Amino acid sequence: MSELNLLSTHKLFNGQQRRYHHYSSVNQCNMNFSVYLPALALQGYRRPVLYCLGGLTCTDENFSIKSGAQRYAAEWGIVLVMPDTSPRGKDIADAVVYNLGQGAGFYVNATNQPWAQHYQMYDYVVSELPQLIEKHFPVNNQRSLCGHSMGGHGAIMIGLKNPHYYLSVSAFAPIAHPCASNWGQEAFTTYLGLNQAQWYQYDSTELLQQSVPTNLSILIDQGSVDEYYPSQLLPHDFVNTAASKGWNIRFNMRDGYDHSYYFVSSFIESHIGFHATAFGL
Amino acid sequence: MSELNLLSTHKLFNGQQRRYHHYSSVNQCNMNFSVYLPALALQGYRRPVLYCLGGLTCTDENFSIKSGAQRYAAEWGIVLVMPDTSPRGKDIADAVVYNLGQGAGFYVNATNQPWAQHYQMYDYVVSELPQLIEKHFPVNNQRSLCGHSMGGHGAIMIGLKNPHYYLSVSAFAPIAHPCASNWGQEAFTTYLGLNQAQWYQYDSTELLQQSVPTNLSILIDQGSVDEYYPSQLLPHDFVNTAASKGWNIRFNMRDGYDHSYYFVSSFIESHIGFHATAFGL
Repeated sequence: MSELNLLSTHKLFNGQQRRYHHYSSVNQCNMNFSVYLPALALQGYRRPVLYCLGGLTCTDENFSIKSGAQRYAAEWGIVLVMPDTSPRGKDIADAVVYNLGQGAGFYVNATNQPWAQHYQMYDYVVSELPQLIEKHFPVNNQRSLCGHSMGGHGAIMIGLKNPHYYLSVSAFAPIAHPCASNWGQEAFTTYLGLNQAQWYQYDSTELLQQSVPTNLSILIDQGSVDEYYPSQLLPHDFVNTAASKGWNIRFNMRDGYDHSYYFVSSFIESHIGFHATAFGL
Repeated sequence: MSELNLLSTHKLFNGQQRRYHHYSSVNQCNMNFSVYLPALALQGYRRPVLYCLGGLTCTDENFSIKSGAQRYAAEWGIVLVMPDTSPRGKDIADAVVYNLGQGAGFYVNATNQPWAQHYQMYDYVVSELPQLIEKHFPVNNQRSLCGHSMGGHGAIMIGLKNPHYYLSVSAFAPIAHPCASNWGQEAFTTYLGLNQAQWYQYDSTELLQQSVPTNLSILIDQGSVDEYYPSQLLPHDFVNTAASKGWNIRFNMRDGYDHSYYFVSSFIESHIGFHATAFGL
């Protein structure tokens, strides 16, 4: 078996949407991811990469099918990488609720069993997957992150922890202060245990509280009628902390928009353009 | 129960994506459809309508989620209506194969039992649904049709049969000569019986053969690596007949594109623009 196994390929906006299957060493199981290669990349030019992180219950395919991002990635010549949101399989630990287990990896390295064996999504997204991408595809060393909901948490958290590895992060309706929301508390208790010091290392608002501002560009969009906004997402905790710490972030409240991919698709053009600016395109 | 029951609504590109449930008199069962209302329509301006017909196995949601059409409908102020592709339910006749029965109504009025009782999709799309739309939504009397695969067959066939009711038709990878393809032959035998004279009234190429050119604008896009292109779709039968009869149609072969919605989304902008021109926008 080769390192990457191509599952499907579709021509899309003069580039290619591909899906791959591969063995993940850090997760110790097979994983899927999708990638969009714009025409310039297919011609061999090394292009910047935007990692697009999905939310609860999603696979790599939700962002691929629903966001509409490829149209703008094609215009700017940006490679998109859509990882899965957790390890998966019948031999992989799972939970009966939608917000834990398969489809809900929360982009952390689990330390609690039975999760620790396979749920190493932080290392997967930050290290293993970029190494694979940079080995197999025509990309340069410009990397950014985008995400929706749980993936928005992942994008901001990963960006804040690695500000010299990523140029920009953007999020739609991120779980911006997981230590203070039920979703985050349940996930962190499950994957990390009860020591809250372990939680803080994966909490965007807590990380920001401990930070000094860097050049990392941060953009957040939040729908005003998102049912999860007041209870689970808490973007204002993040925004207020950013202000108090001297970070210059962009935060847009979007009147009347909800939590769905219809919201994401309505504003994805501005997010791709934001990253294009960070890439100097 | 009111005539239209709202199932969901999402703000999208400053307009609204809605899904409705209603009782269909012609199909004698409940049906779903989706509608996209651009901001101008929400403000009460009567706008043109584009009916978007789905392909085999699809519901109203495939085009809604995957085509990306709403972005361009928002720009032009066009209302989109996405009907389902058949009646559905446990009491509705069905088949074990994907190309017949539920999800595969082929936009005909079935005359064979057990299909005739509920499968009256031609009358539903041409009469009942437009009457509902024109009663309940701010639309004017400008109507056009767009469709994918089986829906492309539906769009062209319905347009040719009603050239004074529709201004333009466009199709992605249409089943353009169903009487000469297995999909079409199986559907027409099942729904209409063995009398081929009945088939011809629903076959775009046969209808064109019997026609005189009208002002109806026709656009077809076909992917060159579409697996169904040579065996089931047969667009050249339609294109050659159009040429012989003096119709001026636009036909684009799209190099490297397949049959998926990734193909549709790559060219939907040009189709919406084509209809906008027909609407005089």
